[in-house]
Amino acid sequence: MTQQCDIGFIGLGVMGKNLVMNLADHGYTIAAFDLDQDKIEGVLKQDELERGDKAPRIVGCHTLEELLAHSAQPHLIILSVPAGKPVDIVCENLMKAGLKTDAVVVDTGNTLWTDTVERTAKYEGQFTLFSTAVSGGEVGARFGPALMPSGDAEQWQRLAPVWEAIAAKVDAKTGKPLESFVPGQPVTEGEPCAAYIGPAGAGHYVKMVHNGIEYADMQQICEAYQVMRDVAGMSCDEIGDVFAEWNQGPLNSYLIEISADILKQKDPATGKPVVDVIQDTAGQKGTGLWTAISSLEVGSPNPSIAQSVFARALSSMKQERVAASKVLKGPQPEALNEEQKAQLIAQLHDALYCSKLCVYAQGFHLMKLAGEQQGWDLDFASIAKIFRAGCIIRAIFLQSITEAFERNGELANLLVDPFFVEQIEERQTNWRKSIANAIINGIPTPVFSASLAYYDTYRNAVVPANLLQAQRDFFGAHTFERVDQPAGEFYHIEWSQPERQQVRVK
Amino acid sequence: MTQQCDIGFIGLGVMGKNLVMNLADHGYTIAAFDLDQDKIEGVLKQDELERGDKAPRIVGCHTLEELLAHSAQPHLIILSVPAGKPVDIVCENLMKAGLKTDAVVVDTGNTLWTDTVERTAKYEGQFTLFSTAVSGGEVGARFGPALMPSGDAEQWQRLAPVWEAIAAKVDAKTGKPLESFVPGQPVTEGEPCAAYIGPAGAGHYVKMVHNGIEYADMQQICEAYQVMRDVAGMSCDEIGDVFAEWNQGPLNSYLIEISADILKQKDPATGKPVVDVIQDTAGQKGTGLWTAISSLEVGSPNPSIAQSVFARALSSMKQERVAASKVLKGPQPEALNEEQKAQLIAQLHDALYCSKLCVYAQGFHLMKLAGEQQGWDLDFASIAKIFRAGCIIRAIFLQSITEAFERNGELANLLVDPFFVEQIEERQTNWRKSIANAIINGIPTPVFSASLAYYDTYRNAVVPANLLQAQRDFFGAHTFERVDQPAGEFYHIEWSQPERQQVRVK
Repeated sequence: MTQQCDIGFIGLGVMGKNLVMNLADHGYTIAAFDLDQDKIEGVLKQDELERGDKAPRIVGCHTLEELLAHSAQPHLIILSVPAGKPVDIVCENLMKAGLKTDAVVVDTGNTLWTDTVERTAKYEGQFTLFSTAVSGGEVGARFGPALMPSGDAEQWQRLAPVWEAIAAKVDAKTGKPLESFVPGQPVTEGEPCAAYIGPAGAGHYVKMVHNGIEYADMQQICEAYQVMRDVAGMSCDEIGDVFAEWNQGPLNSYLIEISADILKQKDPATGKPVVDVIQDTAGQKGTGLWTAISSLEVGSPNPSIAQSVFARALSSMKQERVAASKVLKGPQPEALNEEQKAQLIAQLHDALYCSKLCVYAQGFHLMKLAGEQQGWDLDFASIAKIFRAGCIIRAIFLQSITEAFERNGELANLLVDPFFVEQIEERQTNWRKSIANAIINGIPTPVFSASLAYYDTYRNAVVPANLLQAQRDFFGAHTFERVDQPAGEFYHIEWSQPERQQVRVK
Repeated sequence: MTQQCDIGFIGLGVMGKNLVMNLADHGYTIAAFDLDQDKIEGVLKQDELERGDKAPRIVGCHTLEELLAHSAQPHLIILSVPAGKPVDIVCENLMKAGLKTDAVVVDTGNTLWTDTVERTAKYEGQFTLFSTAVSGGEVGARFGPALMPSGDAEQWQRLAPVWEAIAAKVDAKTGKPLESFVPGQPVTEGEPCAAYIGPAGAGHYVKMVHNGIEYADMQQICEAYQVMRDVAGMSCDEIGDVFAEWNQGPLNSYLIEISADILKQKDPATGKPVVDVIQDTAGQKGTGLWTAISSLEVGSPNPSIAQSVFARALSSMKQERVAASKVLKGPQPEALNEEQKAQLIAQLHDALYCSKLCVYAQGFHLMKLAGEQQGWDLDFASIAKIFRAGCIIRAIFLQSITEAFERNGELANLLVDPFFVEQIEERQTNWRKSIANAIINGIPTPVFSASLAYYDTYRNAVVPANLLQAQRDFFGAHTFERVDQPAGEFYHIEWSQPERQQVRVK
């Protein structure tokens, strides 16, 4: 092999190592560095194992100088190091080691999008910092992640063939993932789940919203599970069967698939279904929370995502909940016959579908508004395409979203796309009945409910905020607009005077 | 009158002027300064008008030096200037004018609580900065606001008689406001709505949560209004009558009272009910949004407050909603007979009561968690007492909350107070039916629904987050705890291996 590798790679943790092996599978040679000598040995050994009788594809480097010497110029350096300070430390050290101004350094960590914006500006003129958010965990990194690259558009031209090679692929017609989990036999056909997102920060923002959607998707599945468990009294096996069946239809997705799998598993120690021995206290890494906060700041209503964050917070209040369960009464669901059970399941299916649509409508609206505020010019069909494979929210549903944005790139909201209008119209009676039934039976469905309230508010030409504006004018002289006068004309009523005179104020 | 006034007062805008007149009514003499000469004249003229044949109570000052010369030492200076930089400018200029280290300067503006924390530290050793959040708008400032003072506990001893004098008052037994709106005849009996909240920042934090609760209170009233309007087809007059009737019972509150009043008003230009000519696009000043963001950051679930912020955001998307209303179908409510209408109203009443309780439970939980994180040691009975009069959320309901915290200052959540347990138990069937009915009829009730989901989750010993934890472990190796093993022991399943081995990882 040549001494001049195609790519310099820094950081050989689980994600880094897997990305390196993925790159190697696609014919790239890599100069690989890590502070930990064992990790360098590890990736070299893995290469030896997997490459068979072919030539080594990786050169282990023990200093950054070595790494630069073994990488072809202009340098293309990929970082897989922890977000935050480590990124800056590596960048500074690369410059000390002789990095040239024509180099591009690609940050693939879980960086907060605003940090990427600042960092890109900071290194301008010294080298080009480019970022790529990676979704799909370890397996995705190894056999095809979803990639959300952003930064300088010219550098993207250079990076594109690399990312498009190693990204997850989908069948362009069906939108279904094309998968291979065999080392050395990567998928080389199909549409890659990698496309340029926009200027610095855009890619990580999109990834953050992906994770917010993921939070809501997971919580919705949990709500469906709880209704089947606590209203219909179904066993884990039965519920797993339902999810497996749903996975054959429009709800087909990675999260439904693994839920079906999980519910079938037994705990070796007790023989019980494994979910029955898992504590019901959810952790979080903060990206869902960031999405909810961003939606508040940006002014894009994302109640379903916020509700899923709050649901995790409530789950973690285990002791309080156990204590409360002893004093707070609720209705006792009655036993269902087979017909009623089948009906409940059919209604839940539609509730999950409709609620899921609202979650995506909210997430894409958030990206739209944030993109407008940041001047990013996002391509939503392209973003939906990326989500079709490799990442956690991958689902057949994303194909429908892709098509919606291909029909109309300026779509105000996914809810008003003609295909989805029809989908909801068919299912909304079941959606309503499902939530009403859960409410009457005392089962919480916060995301289902928030999604329906979102839908019903969004399709409401006249919400009750007229009364709210009157209240605000009453106690705080906040003024109001009139329905029969142009927007931008503000009125106030002298509420404390007996005549209640109305005056135009600005 | 003496040349040495009791208080130096800076900033004579609407709030400042009214606070000065309120102070004067209670026998305090004031050295008053404003950059605007007209405002100084204005307050002197107002004093002349109101004091009758008594001696002047206010000395107009044209420089800060004059203000200090005319105020008794150690100086007590009250600021009513815009939040942000102006506070610092005044503080710096006061020091230049000779402010001594024994002086206390009280910021009564709408300051962000974290700014107060920073500013208090900044001026330490030069003078004491103290802050007091003021609620109740212009009328409150003039005749009795709710006051949330925080800062140095010793300085509070000095300020207490002043704030307790001018604050709103309540009848200690009934918790009802004692009000007088006649200049010169202030209320001097009853419990004052002013009590020391805690160290720097605590008062403004509590005021922020008050505003978050206010957002949700307003939105809930709007939801009840919309159900009556769009399901029962009631006129504004009829709905106003319902609110007026509700105001006689446990929902008695300022916001219900003004809603009844508002719904009865006619627009002079068109003769229509005034709410029918007011545009349904709600504005906001950001405090509800700050509360929602803080609840996410602190980890205290406040879904009802977040939903009310999102409802305002949705209301402002008027054009989108009007467009969506033309393509998105929903159910058509059927006409109700008188009996059905009466039932709908009774159910709504209980929904509003229960949902309101959840909002307050969330708000107080947020203060509890934030207080613990900040080390504030908040007294919730005392805070509830402050809210009973003077402020926007004043309500008879706050007396019940006061009593709950008096029974148990360590109450984990208002929902588990014995009185409220009973209140909800009586009303929850109606609460559930009311929301189920709105959902079936296509009327959005986001806060009602979020509140019920909160209640049903909180009283749930086993939420479905066990499945969620299994999902997280499946795709991200995030590990889980077991129900039959101690907390803090974490397990992982090798999901990608056929044996699905379970291992303890930490």
